[in-house]
Amino acid sequence: MIYFDNSATTKPYKEVLDSFIKVSSEYYGNPSSLHGMGGQAERLLKQAREQIAQLMNVQHNEIYFTSGGTESNNLAIKGTALMHRNRGRHIITTAVEHASVSETIAQLRDLGYRITIIPPDSSGIVSAEDIEKEITSETILVSVMHVNNEIGTIQPINEIGKLLKKHSKIVFHVDDVQGIGKVPLDLYEANVDLCTISAHKFHGLKGNGALYIRDGIRLSPLFSGGNQEWKQRSGTENVAGIVAMAKALRLTMNNKEKFLDRLLSIKKLLMEELGKMEDITVHTPESHSAPHIINFSIKGFKAEVFVHALEEKGIYVSTTSACSSKKAAASSTLIAIGVPEKDAKSAIRVSLTYGNSLEEAATFIVAVKETVNRLREVMK
Amino acid sequence: MIYFDNSATTKPYKEVLDSFIKVSSEYYGNPSSLHGMGGQAERLLKQAREQIAQLMNVQHNEIYFTSGGTESNNLAIKGTALMHRNRGRHIITTAVEHASVSETIAQLRDLGYRITIIPPDSSGIVSAEDIEKEITSETILVSVMHVNNEIGTIQPINEIGKLLKKHSKIVFHVDDVQGIGKVPLDLYEANVDLCTISAHKFHGLKGNGALYIRDGIRLSPLFSGGNQEWKQRSGTENVAGIVAMAKALRLTMNNKEKFLDRLLSIKKLLMEELGKMEDITVHTPESHSAPHIINFSIKGFKAEVFVHALEEKGIYVSTTSACSSKKAAASSTLIAIGVPEKDAKSAIRVSLTYGNSLEEAATFIVAVKETVNRLREVMK
Ligand SMILES: Cc1ncc(COP(=O)(O)O)c(C=O)c1O
Ligand SMILES: Cc1ncc(COP(=O)(O)O)c(C=O)c1O
Repeated sequence: MIYFDNSATTKPYKEVLDSFIKVSSEYYGNPSSLHGMGGQAERLLKQAREQIAQLMNVQHNEIYFTSGGTESNNLAIKGTALMHRNRGRHIITTAVEHASVSETIAQLRDLGYRITIIPPDSSGIVSAEDIEKEITSETILVSVMHVNNEIGTIQPINEIGKLLKKHSKIVFHVDDVQGIGKVPLDLYEANVDLCTISAHKFHGLKGNGALYIRDGIRLSPLFSGGNQEWKQRSGTENVAGIVAMAKALRLTMNNKEKFLDRLLSIKKLLMEELGKMEDITVHTPESHSAPHIINFSIKGFKAEVFVHALEEKGIYVSTTSACSSKKAAASSTLIAIGVPEKDAKSAIRVSLTYGNSLEEAATFIVAVKETVNRLREVMK
Repeated sequence: MIYFDNSATTKPYKEVLDSFIKVSSEYYGNPSSLHGMGGQAERLLKQAREQIAQLMNVQHNEIYFTSGGTESNNLAIKGTALMHRNRGRHIITTAVEHASVSETIAQLRDLGYRITIIPPDSSGIVSAEDIEKEITSETILVSVMHVNNEIGTIQPINEIGKLLKKHSKIVFHVDDVQGIGKVPLDLYEANVDLCTISAHKFHGLKGNGALYIRDGIRLSPLFSGGNQEWKQRSGTENVAGIVAMAKALRLTMNNKEKFLDRLLSIKKLLMEELGKMEDITVHTPESHSAPHIINFSIKGFKAEVFVHALEEKGIYVSTTSACSSKKAAASSTLIAIGVPEKDAKSAIRVSLTYGNSLEEAATFIVAVKETVNRLREVMK
């Protein structure tokens, strides 16, 4: 089996599952309980928070645990919108965000917020200047993803953050679900106020994520209740999942040291080989793109047909983002960068991780060629 | 060790952990992915939904998965408030709700909603008539818990639901986090529209819960995004945790058949023995109370001191609800039923589960007596 759908979700590391089981079975106390079992759980939580903070180069009191990327994005955006509703109701974002950002912002539009959506260039990149031009005294939030989940483009987060520094009241949110562990981002240097991560994208467990909330920034909570997570996110903490997430992030960062070069070679091979093939258009740009996502269209085939044909060869890839794949809608990122709808509907996303090898990539290329030929035969 | 803090959290069943590991390691696909690994995950999700629906005697399309009781309560209440904001902004609730209900409603008050809080009688029970009297044309939501988490009182959900039937536009939400698997509730018969459960309270895993949303009821989502869970709750589903929750609920229901009588005997023993002891006041009422929660005050001791003293004997109990325990605030339920603050601050909650035995209860009673005597000595 070749699993090339790591941007949809990854296989949890064995050590991650081991940690989960150990904590769930031996340290199952509620961290809020007064007794020793509560204390134990609380210490594990604190350790995990410190580890994650260290790996993200921030302070431990800036890491807030959530149920995943979708919750973190909703909390960041709705929490800011509600918190600052009396200061202004203007939000700036881009045309290439994940649905958990774009739909959240659309919901706010329905509630009366004014939204500006910055279009990207043909590589999928938005310009910091374009964002700055739209800022008014009403602007409360700028939300820009780091690495695009459909084509892998990296946004100029540093530049945007530096421009926003002049507008100190504007909250800067970055969805880094696809970037963390793959593309470095210095949150302090880039002046980021809120940053989303999701454990199951880096070999942690589904149902766990975090939101970095810069010291001093306050949000209206999505979950009110027992006031866990410094009142920003109530609810009994998923201690075992959080410990598992800390382990997954550490292992991912270690693997990055060891395997990033290999990942880059695989990407280079795939981009080159696919680029040479007749009827294939590669959408992922050569530069300013992450090491693990390659998106391309195959003229004349519906992506779905191609996904299933590759699956017969034991190769797992996807059409667009997982959560949009069943709607059979074209990738919104491809449409935003000007790919015609027909081609966008033929787009395949390959997404890698540190476990992948050059051999897998070579096998994949052969499989694509065979599949194209076979399907062309069938269609004649 | 005697773990009598099962209303704070329970130990996951071994079979529950086994299911979690199996799904996480073998069926880790994203249920939204088009390929076979996605399909597998999606089938597991569907099966778990059907199982839980069956165990709750509702339809499978009425079960929505969340990250826990706190999320379910927030989604139910905020989702209703936002959905019906143009129809009315009046909410009725009780003075004995869990913080994830009462704080959520307080947040809505700050946003301009009018809130009516129904006081309970001295047993902690609210009257259906008291609720009905407060209904106006502006009322959109009534939220009443089933089993109180601090003293175990059972609310007349059936009666309230029947009275509300005449007011078909009012949404009826029930927090059944403490009741499920312990105290029967027929959601259809009681005319309940929304019902909250949380896996870690019935030997499932932290970070998993569900909201029953009656067919036809719509909420404004808390999480926007990829439109999972019929658009009511976006985010990659925690498939393994959900499968584990279904297993936990099934095992709990089986254990209920086998061990409910024993639980009732333990409760009877504890209530009687504690009731006989000098300086102890039992707050849990004899009738209309759940089989697993017993709350009592010991005159003259701070609850915290007593919790730690019992812990030295390997017995784990709690003061108030776990999430309030560190605030050293008195139990809000005890205050609401008229217990003087001083006594409320001496309150101990014992919370049982089906694994507990009469021997443990007997040991506990001896330990309480010894501890009272020892502490009295110390204080002299
Ligand atoms: C860029 C991006 N943001 C957010 C999410 C949502 O994260 P989660 O699946 O943890 O809800 C995803 C993946 O689904 C993503 O790729
Ligand atoms: C009655 C009640 N409702 C809601 C909750 C919150 O559930 P969770 O811990 O899953 O967030 C709890 C427990 O903490 C509870 O006892």
